[in-house]
Amino acid sequence: MYIPVILGTAREGRQSEKAARYVLTEFQKTGTETELLDVRDYRLPATDASGESETAQRWIEKITKASGYIIVSPEYNRGYPGELKMALDMAYSEYARKPVGICGVSSGAMGGARAVEQLRLLAVAFGMVPLQQALYFPNIQDAFLESGETKDKEYAKRAQKLFEELLWYAEALKKARTA
Amino acid sequence: MYIPVILGTAREGRQSEKAARYVLTEFQKTGTETELLDVRDYRLPATDASGESETAQRWIEKITKASGYIIVSPEYNRGYPGELKMALDMAYSEYARKPVGICGVSSGAMGGARAVEQLRLLAVAFGMVPLQQALYFPNIQDAFLESGETKDKEYAKRAQKLFEELLWYAEALKKARTA
Amino acid sequence: MYIPVILGTAREGRQSEKAARYVLTEFQKTGTETELLDVRDYRLPATDASGESETAQRWIEKITKASGYIIVSPEYNRGYPGELKMALDMAYSEYARKPVGICGVSSGAMGGARAVEQLRLLAVAFGMVPLQQALYFPNIQDAFLESGETKDKEYAKRAQKLFEELLWYAEALKKARTA
Amino acid sequence: MYIPVILGTAREGRQSEKAARYVLTEFQKTGTETELLDVRDYRLPATDASGESETAQRWIEKITKASGYIIVSPEYNRGYPGELKMALDMAYSEYARKPVGICGVSSGAMGGARAVEQLRLLAVAFGMVPLQQALYFPNIQDAFLESGETKDKEYAKRAQKLFEELLWYAEALKKARTA
Repeated sequence: MYIPVILGTAREGRQSEKAARYVLTEFQKTGTETELLDVRDYRLPATDASGESETAQRWIEKITKASGYIIVSPEYNRGYPGELKMALDMAYSEYARKPVGICGVSSGAMGGARAVEQLRLLAVAFGMVPLQQALYFPNIQDAFLESGETKDKEYAKRAQKLFEELLWYAEALKKARTA
Repeated sequence: MYIPVILGTAREGRQSEKAARYVLTEFQKTGTETELLDVRDYRLPATDASGESETAQRWIEKITKASGYIIVSPEYNRGYPGELKMALDMAYSEYARKPVGICGVSSGAMGGARAVEQLRLLAVAFGMVPLQQALYFPNIQDAFLESGETKDKEYAKRAQKLFEELLWYAEALKKARTA
Repeated sequence: MYIPVILGTAREGRQSEKAARYVLTEFQKTGTETELLDVRDYRLPATDASGESETAQRWIEKITKASGYIIVSPEYNRGYPGELKMALDMAYSEYARKPVGICGVSSGAMGGARAVEQLRLLAVAFGMVPLQQALYFPNIQDAFLESGETKDKEYAKRAQKLFEELLWYAEALKKARTA
Repeated sequence: MYIPVILGTAREGRQSEKAARYVLTEFQKTGTETELLDVRDYRLPATDASGESETAQRWIEKITKASGYIIVSPEYNRGYPGELKMALDMAYSEYARKPVGICGVSSGAMGGARAVEQLRLLAVAFGMVPLQQALYFPNIQDAFLESGETKDKEYAKRAQKLFEELLWYAEALKKARTA
């Protein structure tokens, strides 16, 4: 089972990369095959309506292979980053009947909660199953030690709960899709 | 398998009842055990925080028994009816890991599309799986024949697609919950 | 100028009342005519489609008189309370071209941020101007002293910023409406 | 008074350009200074966090000069286009206390109603005033004559209503901002 971690910002100086690397490291402990999908590596000069560009093809290949997704995304002005939306829009039916766990990041107190809600609606539009659980990283500039670990020790437990639900759905739906 | 059809308005003269009865009739053709849950029958004088009222107990019993849900709801001012929210708020963990298909109703052109989006977010908050598909009933005052059938013959096909996806999830998740 | 504070929950044991009374007290310091509109005093047996009930008439009278609104509302399952929606739905054109400041309340970390977003969309549907600013009361059960003051002294400043923006809009729009 | 029309998609073969040109032509009849701001002309290799790039500077200049905005945007997967979000995110305080009228475009029946809702929340985040009214272009591929006029003659009236409200707010708020 392959479940990639999508890093949803290409912005220079992005703080969300720390959260994404932390989530990736924690998720690897579950033994699931994973990797970081960085939207920086999937940018288009313009959204490719045909889906035939090489970039879209690489994206679709990863999305197809996956049994679920983790998205780590900052909130910009209470919405999702444009570059994340452009990446997500490159595929469509390949997302269907697969779960997604969303992790929000912000410099303020909300941890990206509003962007997480908008991303959940996108997930439904793509036919994904957005999880009830989420992981929120407020005050991101102050959340991590230099080692890459979170200052707040509760994060590992919260991440664990998210992963359990994600894997529960990933397995249940994979079984049903292949039945 | 029991999947009730929740009618989300208690308003006098409600037009959504026609849509709910149509959806119920069509859904019965799938052979699934079902019935209409009318929010009129589950109103509280004030929201019952304890969940111990007789009304809340009756609601929770139905929600617990169900393997999924269909909601038929009008849109009021681009949101969901208050009485539907009060009914839904009477239960919580009983909804988890069960799919929900949402049908929107409006007197205008949108068929309740905005209320459907807000209801999808509620569904995620409850741990339900909101379906990608929906059924929209715009111009509701003019949508039905006296016989209870829709004037637009395409509705039966659209309903069929919604039910198929709903039953696919209901079965996949029931299997996984009981495994 | 009259700007009431709407308390958006009728639930027994509601914690939001503390936040609403605090906001009312702070807002009175601006010298604006105000009062608490408690949704408990504006409940209908069923939503009154005609708007002719005595309850609806009392609500419409207050809404009409007001030059703006403050809503203090808890978040239930990431949405707004049903009883608040039923109260708001009793009026329509009376809200138009008037600003609204929204204060969110929750027992968790988000302070009702998701309900605030949904209420902002309702506000737009009613033709109100939802303010960019909001006041969030997370961990409400632990936010207030017995005196009714907030433990966190920053609240008064944040409230002040919300009120300034609210009054700026209330005056600008009143002038334009009566021009 | 200057109120530009923002075209929110850079996608090849974009249908929304027809709607944007129509809205521009209709809006010019009000005598307001306007022009088309095409997000194709404001694309960044990556979102510019500093706002110091030449592209961001050109955007900020237009946004600052404007007394209000019209956005014409397609809906992609029930959300807004990424390239529109990236353009909007280049400015912030320059949007404050100015109205925005949003026009949604889709190939399906909804006319972009879900994207319009998400854009309204962005507008609030930026301190703009999102109008109650909107203009929806469903079935866009079939909505226009070769001359650039709409097949449905009602559009001109609906556009007129949107423009009236937009100009009412633009004037009221400009007066208050400069008072």
